[in-house]
Amino acid sequence: MNDRCDPAEFGRIFRPRAIAVVGSARSQGDSQTVPHSFFFVMSLRNMHFEGPLYIVSRSGSPHPSLDEMVFPSLLDIPGPVDHAILCVPAAAVPGVLEQCAAKGVRSAAIFSSGFSESASAEGKRLEEAIRGIARRSSLRIIGPNCMGIYCPETGLNFRPDLPCAPGPVAMVSQSGGMAIRTIFQGVEKGLGFSKVVSYGNEVDVQSWELIDYLGWDEATRIILVYIEGTRDGRSLLRALKEAGRRKPVVVLKGGLSAEGTRAAMSHTGSLAGNEAVWQAMIRQARAHPVKDVNDLVDTAMTFCFLKRPAGKRIALMCISGGLVVNYTDLAVRSGFEVPAFDPSTQRGLEEIINEPGTSCSNPIDMASLFFNRRIYSPLFQVLNDDTNTDLILFIIAMEYVTALQMQYRVSLSGLVQAFLDIVSKVTKPFVAVIPPVVEEESRLEVERAFLKAGIPTFITMEGAMNALRARINDPREDPVRH
Amino acid sequence: MNDRCDPAEFGRIFRPRAIAVVGSARSQGDSQTVPHSFFFVMSLRNMHFEGPLYIVSRSGSPHPSLDEMVFPSLLDIPGPVDHAILCVPAAAVPGVLEQCAAKGVRSAAIFSSGFSESASAEGKRLEEAIRGIARRSSLRIIGPNCMGIYCPETGLNFRPDLPCAPGPVAMVSQSGGMAIRTIFQGVEKGLGFSKVVSYGNEVDVQSWELIDYLGWDEATRIILVYIEGTRDGRSLLRALKEAGRRKPVVVLKGGLSAEGTRAAMSHTGSLAGNEAVWQAMIRQARAHPVKDVNDLVDTAMTFCFLKRPAGKRIALMCISGGLVVNYTDLAVRSGFEVPAFDPSTQRGLEEIINEPGTSCSNPIDMASLFFNRRIYSPLFQVLNDDTNTDLILFIIAMEYVTALQMQYRVSLSGLVQAFLDIVSKVTKPFVAVIPPVVEEESRLEVERAFLKAGIPTFITMEGAMNALRARINDPREDPVRH
Repeated sequence: MNDRCDPAEFGRIFRPRAIAVVGSARSQGDSQTVPHSFFFVMSLRNMHFEGPLYIVSRSGSPHPSLDEMVFPSLLDIPGPVDHAILCVPAAAVPGVLEQCAAKGVRSAAIFSSGFSESASAEGKRLEEAIRGIARRSSLRIIGPNCMGIYCPETGLNFRPDLPCAPGPVAMVSQSGGMAIRTIFQGVEKGLGFSKVVSYGNEVDVQSWELIDYLGWDEATRIILVYIEGTRDGRSLLRALKEAGRRKPVVVLKGGLSAEGTRAAMSHTGSLAGNEAVWQAMIRQARAHPVKDVNDLVDTAMTFCFLKRPAGKRIALMCISGGLVVNYTDLAVRSGFEVPAFDPSTQRGLEEIINEPGTSCSNPIDMASLFFNRRIYSPLFQVLNDDTNTDLILFIIAMEYVTALQMQYRVSLSGLVQAFLDIVSKVTKPFVAVIPPVVEEESRLEVERAFLKAGIPTFITMEGAMNALRARINDPREDPVRH
Repeated sequence: MNDRCDPAEFGRIFRPRAIAVVGSARSQGDSQTVPHSFFFVMSLRNMHFEGPLYIVSRSGSPHPSLDEMVFPSLLDIPGPVDHAILCVPAAAVPGVLEQCAAKGVRSAAIFSSGFSESASAEGKRLEEAIRGIARRSSLRIIGPNCMGIYCPETGLNFRPDLPCAPGPVAMVSQSGGMAIRTIFQGVEKGLGFSKVVSYGNEVDVQSWELIDYLGWDEATRIILVYIEGTRDGRSLLRALKEAGRRKPVVVLKGGLSAEGTRAAMSHTGSLAGNEAVWQAMIRQARAHPVKDVNDLVDTAMTFCFLKRPAGKRIALMCISGGLVVNYTDLAVRSGFEVPAFDPSTQRGLEEIINEPGTSCSNPIDMASLFFNRRIYSPLFQVLNDDTNTDLILFIIAMEYVTALQMQYRVSLSGLVQAFLDIVSKVTKPFVAVIPPVVEEESRLEVERAFLKAGIPTFITMEGAMNALRARINDPREDPVRH
């Protein structure tokens, strides 16, 4: 095996001309459920995969609408097949892979589980058989025990309900569940994906190859990694380093604790290894470590939307004095500062934030001035020029916003629009924290308007601080989506 | 001033026979907005306050519908007035309070701000004047710079949109914004409130008096405290200790950091003081410290719903192996354990969780068995009997639940009901983490069904761990709502 991936050759995996889904027309589990083969076919159809699509099933068609696509064996398919998706029982996998090799299939993704992760002798034997086939042929194998590839640009997909719009974010994930959650949460935060690979037990295609490739891939501007373990730490470190020189790499390590390691073992058969070793590797590669999927997505969003703040000094503002006192504590606890404004800022603010109940020092307590559209333009201008702060963070307390119609004669969409008009002129990095409190629908309306305008929004202060810390630590100045 | 509050006398503040709202018919700020006096009158009406309600305004009525209730001065009101709400400019407050004292008003809540929190000499002088009136009369003064009292049982209220259903949770809050957010978030988590007092600048009625009183109050079973500072640490410590002997007390301290302290100073004029001193006080009082309002509400919910788990050993389960590996890491990081099950549990689980792709060791990876209703009854029975774990935590991944209709022939409400039927028979403490990922409406449907059944639900693993830690640290065995 080479220790570098050939981007041109590897890239072909993401552009198959024809795909075969190999799986029984009957479900492996509960007879009530729809068979997995049908699920994969629907996924590819919904993503508008353009090439020929075949189903290989000896037990007939998984659904009457698919009758024409069904063949009893891969070798019966008339045209070429570049990619195969296997959802047959584990014991049948080596046989199907032999057929793939004989047919000249380039890549196969194995959804089936029951291999080394099951800790059974039979599972390990089957996994060795798969590895042998990969060694003896040019077939590249993803998995087993994985979801395979999601690539909206070329129509590859593993779930019927995933979004069709592509974007700059790529993900290499040892877990299918983590990949799915990242895509869904990412879309909620305004992100699109270039390529997501769920690679499971890593029998042939290695995480480092995927990272290498994505480092070169022009459609990818940021790489997210969920990894439980590796057999080749040296290549992984090299790949992380090299990809990290070209684009930001964010890593969520699964199985850092001893108990998580045991769980990873029965999840993907991975030896998760020592926490300190992993942390050292991530640090050495200058990748950005995160603790959970919320931080993974929020960090990706922040890289996509925000230019780099020069430091950790926040200009903080909120409608409520009590909330902003606590938010200040949370910021400081996360290693940020909420310093006094410079004297000229302070003088400027005294002209703007000056009603009873407000406070114009940092953090700013806006009180009912929150509802006064006229202050936002001078307010942001003054904050934009402040030399003592590096970014502006606005807490939007929806429990006051929804009181709009009661006490103040402003519409929610009107206020949001006025606000965005002004914020678009701000050159200092700007983010919003919009916690879920009341009327989730209104909150999502505000959040989506902000995200659409390219403003990172978070639901917790800690989430904001974690993502901003990574953004500030990365030397790249511009948002990656530009 | 006495150093004990007289519960009988103090309790009368929460049961006024008649209320006067004193405030201009014109708003202090933007002329577009509705005046605060109208806002308070609507709040009391919406809460069905039963006694006479008066408006004192020399500038007429804040709204034509209220014409009959308006008097030019407190002294012109024919009947007795027990409670007054002041929303006049700061400079007019002492004069109104003198009238309150002359009229025999028992208590006044001062919404107006512009006192010591403004750091102006005039503000401080006015605050001293208020303090003098309180000393010379029997009038008890709440605030200034506060929202006052919310007590659904007796119709007291400070915002028109607050819920009318009472409950066992009380709150003493130096911040009105924090009180409002706690009420709204609490209601979302299935909590009701007995009494909430936003007390602001604490010129007369002290936080320790309120805590003392709520310790005795029979309608209150748990006390939440948001505090920025105090002038009487000794009385506060004593009150926290005494109330804490009778019911759980949860404390969110605002202004722990130096920068938060500065913010607290301009918020309520409080000297927030040293972090170590506060932490020692909270620890000495055996109160439960929390870092933010999410943990405050989640901890209250956990005390209300959950009997005390015997320890920190979690039986963890989820549909996704990758997610559950990370959730295990997060649990361990928070000081919890996800230990191996005892051998008889393990044997039992092998009979139940045995399809390819699942794992029946702790944490349990349910894979598609999540959708199989038949397994839940034996599964929970086995987990209930496990001697190696103290509580059961179920992660509900909505991105799979919403896939129900696509692949599995089960309805969401049917699955939830089947699940709740079984969980109601579980005697081991049980909680759920239901993160927001997709289709928030469906998620809220599941969350509300769980909360209605008395199952604590959280949106993050860390939130769950923080609340459970407090619950386990408290010696009381039974949920407080029983």
